[in-house]
Amino acid sequence: MEIDNKKYIRLIEEGKIFSYSLAKGTFILPPNGFIIWDQIKKYLDDKFEKLNVKNVILPTLIPISLLEKEKEHIKGFSPELFLVRKKKLDNQIELEDSDEILALRPTSEVLFYEWFSKILQSYKQLPFLYNQWGQVFRAEKNTKPFLRNTEFLWQEGHTLQSSEEEARDFSKKILNIYKDYVENILCLSVTIGKKTSCEKFAGALESYTVECLLPDYQCLQVATSHYFGKNFSYAFNVSFRDEENKLKIPSSTSWGTSTRSIGALVLAHSDDFGLVFPFKIAPIQIAFIRRGDEQCLKDYETETYNKLSSLYRCKFYDENKQLSVNLASADKEGCPIKIIIGSREFESKNLTISLRFSPKEKNVISNEEIFSFIVDSEKKISNYLYEKSDFVKKSHVFKFDNYCDFIKEIEYKKGLFLVPFCDRSSCENSVREKFPSFSFRCISFSEEILNNKCIFCQFDSVGMAYFGRSY
Amino acid sequence: MEIDNKKYIRLIEEGKIFSYSLAKGTFILPPNGFIIWDQIKKYLDDKFEKLNVKNVILPTLIPISLLEKEKEHIKGFSPELFLVRKKKLDNQIELEDSDEILALRPTSEVLFYEWFSKILQSYKQLPFLYNQWGQVFRAEKNTKPFLRNTEFLWQEGHTLQSSEEEARDFSKKILNIYKDYVENILCLSVTIGKKTSCEKFAGALESYTVECLLPDYQCLQVATSHYFGKNFSYAFNVSFRDEENKLKIPSSTSWGTSTRSIGALVLAHSDDFGLVFPFKIAPIQIAFIRRGDEQCLKDYETETYNKLSSLYRCKFYDENKQLSVNLASADKEGCPIKIIIGSREFESKNLTISLRFSPKEKNVISNEEIFSFIVDSEKKISNYLYEKSDFVKKSHVFKFDNYCDFIKEIEYKKGLFLVPFCDRSSCENSVREKFPSFSFRCISFSEEILNNKCIFCQFDSVGMAYFGRSY
Repeated sequence: MEIDNKKYIRLIEEGKIFSYSLAKGTFILPPNGFIIWDQIKKYLDDKFEKLNVKNVILPTLIPISLLEKEKEHIKGFSPELFLVRKKKLDNQIELEDSDEILALRPTSEVLFYEWFSKILQSYKQLPFLYNQWGQVFRAEKNTKPFLRNTEFLWQEGHTLQSSEEEARDFSKKILNIYKDYVENILCLSVTIGKKTSCEKFAGALESYTVECLLPDYQCLQVATSHYFGKNFSYAFNVSFRDEENKLKIPSSTSWGTSTRSIGALVLAHSDDFGLVFPFKIAPIQIAFIRRGDEQCLKDYETETYNKLSSLYRCKFYDENKQLSVNLASADKEGCPIKIIIGSREFESKNLTISLRFSPKEKNVISNEEIFSFIVDSEKKISNYLYEKSDFVKKSHVFKFDNYCDFIKEIEYKKGLFLVPFCDRSSCENSVREKFPSFSFRCISFSEEILNNKCIFCQFDSVGMAYFGRSY
Repeated sequence: MEIDNKKYIRLIEEGKIFSYSLAKGTFILPPNGFIIWDQIKKYLDDKFEKLNVKNVILPTLIPISLLEKEKEHIKGFSPELFLVRKKKLDNQIELEDSDEILALRPTSEVLFYEWFSKILQSYKQLPFLYNQWGQVFRAEKNTKPFLRNTEFLWQEGHTLQSSEEEARDFSKKILNIYKDYVENILCLSVTIGKKTSCEKFAGALESYTVECLLPDYQCLQVATSHYFGKNFSYAFNVSFRDEENKLKIPSSTSWGTSTRSIGALVLAHSDDFGLVFPFKIAPIQIAFIRRGDEQCLKDYETETYNKLSSLYRCKFYDENKQLSVNLASADKEGCPIKIIIGSREFESKNLTISLRFSPKEKNVISNEEIFSFIVDSEKKISNYLYEKSDFVKKSHVFKFDNYCDFIKEIEYKKGLFLVPFCDRSSCENSVREKFPSFSFRCISFSEEILNNKCIFCQFDSVGMAYFGRSY
């Protein structure tokens, strides 16, 4: 289902996962939104911990002087910086001259490397594998909830390794963790690959990306992992003594995923009735809805609720007297499983269960079957959502081996165009001019090259590149 | 042990719980520091959840216009605000005129109330019980790690209740949770009470506080809970319809504790060898230190490590060849239990254990006894640290029922002075002028009034007030 902007806002507000805050482009994560982000956090923290990554917290304030050390890198964030000054609040607002001008971090590379340069001495300390969960700031002009915000939440990992190979391998390991999380937790079909030279992160040697093609056939980048070589270590004088006491420069990586993922979830899975969530990250996993007001029904409902609520996030939907309104509330919040209890269910000690993804199907099961039913449903829901997302992708990736066919079809086809590409900046820039609303999303790792020549310039192609519209 | 500033910095840097970041007054929480804060977070989240409090995330950016709605409240934070503007980064730094001037939140009352005013309609939605973990900003001139920072971490709870009584009760419930956490998790003896009219939070009707008397006999506020009555709800037009559809104003509370707690931990428990932590929140709970390099010793050590590391945070200290250096490293990091393994231990299948708080005592136990030994030690360590902190308090609280005795002893005694007090602002202001380095810490809930008259002004006393030096 394609979702226009108005509908998108309605979905996330009625689903209680988002609320505007007053500074332009900022938002509040209400309890439902918090739970989704917290589930993503727990899943990734667990994966990162297995790689021995440690969590840390760095400040959001950075002296401008420090930011300017890595000019190439910072240019990538211009003109999106927020500048901070001290403020005196008397009757009038007054600016105070401050010794140092501060900025709000647009990303934390420079904070990490400054710290690394202070604490790294010996090869024995390496690798440094650090991650932080926090918010970053970009003074964007056009904002859209979750997809583009001036202040948003993310996770950013930063590592130092003694060898280039170790660092590059690590950035690819992380890419695979991201792929796994987007596929298995968000239930989205993905395209992974390498960013082109023009599109890669400022200061990186290589940037890897996880991209989703959403139902409006636009592409969204949901996670990235960067291999820096020694670029950042050089810029910030980070070095160490190796086993022979020689001075060496470490290689490094950074990688992140953000609340943008929640936007992808909403755009990919929602329907006319509201949000649709995979079971694992649904804020409310099981809705309890009662048909009738008799005490025996309330008792039966509470008994079932108590049985499940220690294992699952459960909620009574009983604010309204009308059954249909309560059902609709649960649907708006994307609750995957609804348990409906009325006198028929009470008398037969059964439960009527409705699954969010297939509303017409009514399942009547005995009370004892509930646990196995939930486990089965969880899988069914995941498969259904993933397959739906995968269908969008599979049916809208179009391969071309020559410019002639490509130019004929790009006019009217919607989706991703997969073409042999040279990855030269001059070629990419001229392609950008010709197709201003398109961009290269990534160069595939696995797609077989259909033509040794780039379809745009006839130079040697380095791989098959995905070309499409993006958010 | 009294700790001067230089020693304090050395303790937290060598203990790897703190690192300066570059913007003045900001800091990095390295892995060890992160774990302490995370343990505090987990403990409190669990307690809050039992009260049905939900976590949310609000932005750090606030439009100045919104802050100015509650002038009384904001004056309390003047002149400590950071002001934010958009920034253009070309060759030169340039300020861009922005539609709205933003500030970094010094606390989030106004963000919460603005949100509440949008989402609250009916009594059915109440109570609102929300909490967020995040950072806040105060442009302090004099900073000290953990105790006073320009950017620090905290938790802030914000609630709305339909009745005044319910709100006041809730703020006291939270106070008791804080008391419990400071006593049982941080192992600090506390003084709790009500802030005086002058010292209470700007906009609050009542502020409750948890204060610690530290070994230098200065007082540190480690947590507070505020009852607002309807003040904030009025200021932000927050209202709801009651059961009879009448418009009502909700009562409210807010409450918080911060990374300042980590400072209290360090100042209260450290010794000449380094940090000393209670077992529950120690970043490294069990240190493994080997005497000798034989493979059989390594195997025995690894086997013991594997047995314990799924339950406890364990670390091998083997960076140095000298046993004493490795022991000292574990001590600097405040590790409560050290397991030492050498050939003697290997041959007898024993373990030698040294407890951080009593370094001279060597415990030799059999390998099977290890789990029960740890459980016993955990209690011993808590008791020891708490008793030590309690002794500081008990031996340095001085009660007076008249001004004459008080004025004689305040000159040369160090500690807290407990005196009958009227809680009138005019009286408090004149006392402040006379004793500029002292302040009223709180009015005790439980201490019996020794004199019906305030010892400073002879007006009626409302309770016994703690008067002392503070950080």
